[in-house]
Amino acid sequence: MKSKIRKSTGQIAQHLGSDLLGDAEKIITGVASFEDSTPQDITLAGDVHYLKELDKTRAGAIIVPESFKGLENLVARGLSVFPVKNPRASWALVLQLFYPPCHPQWGISGMAAVGKNMVCGKDPNIGPFVVIGDNVTMGDRVVIYPHVYIGDGTHLGDDVTIYANVTIEYGTKIGSRVIIQPGTVIGSDGFGFAPDSEKWIKIPQLGIVQIDDDVEIGASNTIDRATFGKTRIGSGVKTDNQVHVAHNVTVGENSVLVAQVGIAGSVTIGKHVILAGQTGVAEHLTIGDGAIIGPSSGVAKDVPEKAVYSGAPAQPHRHWLRVQNVVASLPELKKRILKLESLAAGKAGSNETRKD
Amino acid sequence: MKSKIRKSTGQIAQHLGSDLLGDAEKIITGVASFEDSTPQDITLAGDVHYLKELDKTRAGAIIVPESFKGLENLVARGLSVFPVKNPRASWALVLQLFYPPCHPQWGISGMAAVGKNMVCGKDPNIGPFVVIGDNVTMGDRVVIYPHVYIGDGTHLGDDVTIYANVTIEYGTKIGSRVIIQPGTVIGSDGFGFAPDSEKWIKIPQLGIVQIDDDVEIGASNTIDRATFGKTRIGSGVKTDNQVHVAHNVTVGENSVLVAQVGIAGSVTIGKHVILAGQTGVAEHLTIGDGAIIGPSSGVAKDVPEKAVYSGAPAQPHRHWLRVQNVVASLPELKKRILKLESLAAGKAGSNETRKD
Amino acid sequence: MKSKIRKSTGQIAQHLGSDLLGDAEKIITGVASFEDSTPQDITLAGDVHYLKELDKTRAGAIIVPESFKGLENLVARGLSVFPVKNPRASWALVLQLFYPPCHPQWGISGMAAVGKNMVCGKDPNIGPFVVIGDNVTMGDRVVIYPHVYIGDGTHLGDDVTIYANVTIEYGTKIGSRVIIQPGTVIGSDGFGFAPDSEKWIKIPQLGIVQIDDDVEIGASNTIDRATFGKTRIGSGVKTDNQVHVAHNVTVGENSVLVAQVGIAGSVTIGKHVILAGQTGVAEHLTIGDGAIIGPSSGVAKDVPEKAVYSGAPAQPHRHWLRVQNVVASLPELKKRILKLESLAAGKAGSNETRKD
Repeated sequence: MKSKIRKSTGQIAQHLGSDLLGDAEKIITGVASFEDSTPQDITLAGDVHYLKELDKTRAGAIIVPESFKGLENLVARGLSVFPVKNPRASWALVLQLFYPPCHPQWGISGMAAVGKNMVCGKDPNIGPFVVIGDNVTMGDRVVIYPHVYIGDGTHLGDDVTIYANVTIEYGTKIGSRVIIQPGTVIGSDGFGFAPDSEKWIKIPQLGIVQIDDDVEIGASNTIDRATFGKTRIGSGVKTDNQVHVAHNVTVGENSVLVAQVGIAGSVTIGKHVILAGQTGVAEHLTIGDGAIIGPSSGVAKDVPEKAVYSGAPAQPHRHWLRVQNVVASLPELKKRILKLESLAAGKAGSNETRKD
Repeated sequence: MKSKIRKSTGQIAQHLGSDLLGDAEKIITGVASFEDSTPQDITLAGDVHYLKELDKTRAGAIIVPESFKGLENLVARGLSVFPVKNPRASWALVLQLFYPPCHPQWGISGMAAVGKNMVCGKDPNIGPFVVIGDNVTMGDRVVIYPHVYIGDGTHLGDDVTIYANVTIEYGTKIGSRVIIQPGTVIGSDGFGFAPDSEKWIKIPQLGIVQIDDDVEIGASNTIDRATFGKTRIGSGVKTDNQVHVAHNVTVGENSVLVAQVGIAGSVTIGKHVILAGQTGVAEHLTIGDGAIIGPSSGVAKDVPEKAVYSGAPAQPHRHWLRVQNVVASLPELKKRILKLESLAAGKAGSNETRKD
Repeated sequence: MKSKIRKSTGQIAQHLGSDLLGDAEKIITGVASFEDSTPQDITLAGDVHYLKELDKTRAGAIIVPESFKGLENLVARGLSVFPVKNPRASWALVLQLFYPPCHPQWGISGMAAVGKNMVCGKDPNIGPFVVIGDNVTMGDRVVIYPHVYIGDGTHLGDDVTIYANVTIEYGTKIGSRVIIQPGTVIGSDGFGFAPDSEKWIKIPQLGIVQIDDDVEIGASNTIDRATFGKTRIGSGVKTDNQVHVAHNVTVGENSVLVAQVGIAGSVTIGKHVILAGQTGVAEHLTIGDGAIIGPSSGVAKDVPEKAVYSGAPAQPHRHWLRVQNVVASLPELKKRILKLESLAAGKAGSNETRKD
């Protein structure tokens, strides 16, 4: 795929922080799959499946695992070779290099409604019909798409991108390099009501949401403000679409919340946790660092560090697998119980006969 | 229910493509239920339950199954009768005839922000505070409600309706007669990250979303753009509210995704598939043409054509039913095992006694 | 937490409708936790756990259960004491008193697009880029945040607050003191299609949504209009985020729908029902008054009044617990069946031996 960007193989090596075998002056103008690449492209041979095929690519440059042998043959054929530790991560980086986000250029649109005392860094890019409240501060190179609402006293760091139709309520703190996909709501009231006979009395939600650096929030998420204190999304967290995070939840660094996950109030999620799609977590629970929860699970009690859990209620994945195997065979198991019963009844009969 | 529209019974027959018994010149001014209709209304007697009641309606015109006998009596009473193959489909068509969508009329609102090079067909209807990017093309009679964002290079076919607060990211291709309910997001980034020790590196999402003709997308859906290539919603597909479709998914023609369904990346769904509410589908799976998946299911492996599946993990519906029956009786089954064990222990005891 | 509001302890007693022991003239300027309060604060000692600690608080005023003894000691120490029946409800009320919602003040923004014949009560507060259709009526003190779309003929009662990016389709009726969190869609088309061989014919959705007094709707809900008649949310209902309510559903007074609940078409939910998070309800069912459904349940048949149900399919909670206990032990149970079988086989063998 053609890019508008031209980079020398030397520049690419620098971007990847990798070694380079072969020509460092070759100009690369796009990224392509192993099969479709041309001499102007860089491509990827990500694992051992490509070892036998290496001489088939027409690419001008190639990323390979550093464990690959015989790279001198590739160099001899004229390729520039990047041997790397983590080919998939390098592939992501090279795609970022050639296809940076391409936003419309609005400057500060004359059709935006900006409140009092906005403090704004370099190169703001704020679209039409954006509403920014009073006393909002933001860093450099912030991009805000149309129809975004940003409440009073919100802070955005450097290089933040907020897509269309996002709502950010007052007092939210957002770090640098944060991306928020369209339609998401940050800082809505937590779901807090005190029962009073049949009725419910609203408990004012007086806390905030804090989103740390390098977070990406998917489309149509809802992240509620805290009752007191803060709902906190740790640095490097990635959420997929339609994720719900209730008041006073903490999500630890680099955790991943897959689509349609729902997290109830005051849950603490550790670092580098993965919650697969549609999983729910009940309130006040703790999920330990590095835990992985399978899809559509219902977490009903604390999960230890590094545990792998599945099911509803969520349980250690291996136990869940064993249980599911038996569940699947239950109709047959029931027949075996019936057979045992009829054997036992027969025996009982013969016993009684014997008693006579 | 009174309509502003007046149609002769002859015109209605033409609209339905059906036969007409009786007066073809009668003027009908509304649609009503069997019980509440007046001589100016058309009504429906959709199935055999109505056979005995036919003489009770006061309607001026009636849709009946073509299998009904004795229609001459109705005609003799002055009714215009439409005998049809599919009464419910004809009922939908007659409702469409008398109650067409009634949108506010904006022309191209002076409060919309339209980019460069828009190519626009006949009778555009674009509301206030709509933002349309550069190089957008659209067919005739397109309706775009307020606060819609349409990214650069998007194409909309004829007779497309996009309700309020919808976000359509750049490069999206939308066919004709497509309806998108409010709050939906089309073309957000797919959820793609490469792991790099504890961190996640964003994989740029460079593909698009393509929505074919006659699709209706419900409210607050999220349909992600592809990593490369396209996420594709086939013609005639209908999605309910809060449906999530990940990057590189293909949904075949006339399939139905009920509310809160979530489909992970690179799934292929065949034609005329039905996924019931809250069902999740794991990544890279294939669901065959005509398959039906029950509500709240978790599809964890491929589903064959025309299969009916249920449960989490999803399995053939009949097996699932058998399993569920046994599951419900497990406490009793456990007692029966205990009884067998005590019988066996008794026997063992008596055996041992005998050995003495 | 400091408030901008100052109230005498006498005024607080009036607001709570409670007795007051001690000084009625003391000025209170904030609300704080038991541990962190100062003499200018009011705090809460909500249950017996605080009984032994009562002399440790530095608060100037305190809410306690009316059952507490020895309150004269507190008064002697200079505290103003509010003995109440429901401390948590009183706590919510006192938080409401000191921290009322703090909305930006827009009047009727010159950047809003208001249709014909709007009837508007006292002190409207309508933000920039709001779109209001024709013939909309609203009561006093209505707050409408930016990017809200309100369709023709909608009615809003007194003291309604609608947060940013909400869509309210035409003809919606909303009572007084209703709060709608950001991103929610009210009045989208119900999901109604008539099958016609492989295709689906849209059934026009001609009804409305009615939301009664004192309802709070969470962020990113979708509440569909009825096919005919109305979808109705009864007074005092509270919904969490990402709740889906289909066409023609009725939700009874003071019921609670927790996050990501999905309710299919024509369901009737009684009064004071609680549906926990991620629960789904199949179409046409009835859930009786006072029923409670556990998280991630799949309601597949009617639920009686006051029943407590769990699981998918949902069943009486106690039975579900018993079943789940056996399910968890299934691998062990299978071993016991195997043992019984080998015992029986052994016996059968020894029987046969005996027969010889």
